[in-house]
Amino acid sequence: MTNPLPPGATIGILGGGQLGRMLSVAAARLGFQTHIFEPGANPPAGEVARHVTTASYDDAEALKTFAEQVDVITYEFENIPTSALDILEAHRPIRPGREALRVSQDRLTEKQFLQSLGLKTAPFAAIDTLDELEEAVATIGAPAILKTRRFGYDGKGQARIKSSEDIAQAFADMAGAPSILEGFVDFSHEVSVIAARGLTGDVACYDPGENVHRDGILHTTTVPAKLSAGQRMDAVLLAARILNELQYVGVMGVELFVTSQGLIVNEIAPRVHNSGHWTQNGCAVDQFEQHIRAVVGWPLGDGQRHNDVVMENLIGDDINHVPQILRESNNALHLYGKNDVKPGRKMGHVNRIQKSAS
Amino acid sequence: MTNPLPPGATIGILGGGQLGRMLSVAAARLGFQTHIFEPGANPPAGEVARHVTTASYDDAEALKTFAEQVDVITYEFENIPTSALDILEAHRPIRPGREALRVSQDRLTEKQFLQSLGLKTAPFAAIDTLDELEEAVATIGAPAILKTRRFGYDGKGQARIKSSEDIAQAFADMAGAPSILEGFVDFSHEVSVIAARGLTGDVACYDPGENVHRDGILHTTTVPAKLSAGQRMDAVLLAARILNELQYVGVMGVELFVTSQGLIVNEIAPRVHNSGHWTQNGCAVDQFEQHIRAVVGWPLGDGQRHNDVVMENLIGDDINHVPQILRESNNALHLYGKNDVKPGRKMGHVNRIQKSAS
Repeated sequence: MTNPLPPGATIGILGGGQLGRMLSVAAARLGFQTHIFEPGANPPAGEVARHVTTASYDDAEALKTFAEQVDVITYEFENIPTSALDILEAHRPIRPGREALRVSQDRLTEKQFLQSLGLKTAPFAAIDTLDELEEAVATIGAPAILKTRRFGYDGKGQARIKSSEDIAQAFADMAGAPSILEGFVDFSHEVSVIAARGLTGDVACYDPGENVHRDGILHTTTVPAKLSAGQRMDAVLLAARILNELQYVGVMGVELFVTSQGLIVNEIAPRVHNSGHWTQNGCAVDQFEQHIRAVVGWPLGDGQRHNDVVMENLIGDDINHVPQILRESNNALHLYGKNDVKPGRKMGHVNRIQKSAS
Repeated sequence: MTNPLPPGATIGILGGGQLGRMLSVAAARLGFQTHIFEPGANPPAGEVARHVTTASYDDAEALKTFAEQVDVITYEFENIPTSALDILEAHRPIRPGREALRVSQDRLTEKQFLQSLGLKTAPFAAIDTLDELEEAVATIGAPAILKTRRFGYDGKGQARIKSSEDIAQAFADMAGAPSILEGFVDFSHEVSVIAARGLTGDVACYDPGENVHRDGILHTTTVPAKLSAGQRMDAVLLAARILNELQYVGVMGVELFVTSQGLIVNEIAPRVHNSGHWTQNGCAVDQFEQHIRAVVGWPLGDGQRHNDVVMENLIGDDINHVPQILRESNNALHLYGKNDVKPGRKMGHVNRIQKSAS
């Protein structure tokens, strides 16, 4: 299927969290129906979707039935088991495609892929043994950070190594999982590019946003980011190179460190990205709609920014700020429908419109 | 219940069309669940709602069960049978309240109410007999328009009287329904104010939009409207007077004719309004969220406009413009998920962002 899907078609979404929820709303806005596949009960996305399948990624029958009921499959997270993807792909196209998932599911593969494109990354080394870790710390230097190659997000599955004294504990923290040591990058700030590539190969990028993290989780994204015109151009060209090389279809988040030696790629995420939430109140076509347009084969929006925005995540107890946020002017609140407040849990976000972009 | 509802509460919405659909999405964005009550199968709102009840407004048991499952009840259209409202109101608060429905369900009552506030309306007369119609045309003059007092919308239930020769046919067209003759108003253009009043009595208005109709149906709304500063102020004060008098809770659409003798109230609609769709891409808090905020007792947004917008309805075959709309920059497309295209049927709308408002 390479023809555009007509309105009324059904988009299958793997994952029922807030990204799936906002994808589902964007799909509805374009006249599509959505079907969420999610192991957990009462997923946030289920409240705004036409159909929900509650089943495990091990459930071959449920996966097959789901695939047969939808016209195209996309996802809100990259750590989908390969066995599930094999079953799904036998029935319907998965967009973004398998190559993007293969590359981004493994931090080592991802770094090697980026290097193969001539892009700069942090220094890194594959770590399977304590000996390898000791050797790598000696080469790359400390501070450095040890991460599991797979299944890490929001700072989970990571251990900092400030000096050689931390090596043994860091290695133990990985619990035997294949890992990667990443060297320290001396950066002034982090930005991300939300880039999209359509089914016909057209690429569109939003203006880069500047990210600030707190406790290893994204706290704010500010648009426009502090970047020179040249850096802005570099960021967009670099993102386009990644998407084109992967023959990517959909929205990707590309995190970049800004350094005196240029832009260094931190990581890529083959999906809509938290640092792109500002587009909901900054652009005519937000990242969620852009992703849907790509996966159904429709023309992309051009990424034009109409408003300057500061996006702020509401994490855990930040939800208590809601009454104040509602009272302030120019705030667009987005809550995810999660009832249980837990530390580190993303409960919602607020887009603070700063002024009109000219 | 006069306390604000917490996120996670359920909002019952009477009517499952596009207005209910966009209300449902706005409610979800604030963390609420929605439950749609709609007689027709597969309502557009059902695709983005948690629960749907498919039942008639005659079905007392279904109404009672629906009311018991929600925390507050609102609606997307004003022509809800009184008997249904009686059943619902015995269980849960209905917002906006009964008085607004009583006034706006009957064109005669509405005109009398507006006059009682000292507001200007078109000349009018109640018509129950052919004799009354002949007398009224003699007094008010032609051209004039004969309308059923109840259940009219988008030009339905109306007959134009260009001269006394049209009287008999126009009267016959009403098929015995109690009617109202409305005189011609010499206006330069029509504007509407989307106004909101919260549970604590605070009022907020959006900038007036300028409406252009085609075949009796709204075609475009342009913001800002052509109005002097004084007219703008008049429009807002006038709308606030209506909402305050009704002790209204929610969003109301107030249509105004701009004339050399000042602003004349055309009609009011006790709900979100087609001429307020521009707020989705012009404001941090759109009319749908504003309505939800009001009915759950949350603080209102202040109506601040960030972008100038031209909203254009996609009616019937206008849906064929979608490919072109998608290719143009700065267009925000909103489709309603209706599969059957019929002449006069509202299929969607596009908000064309003109430039940033300063």
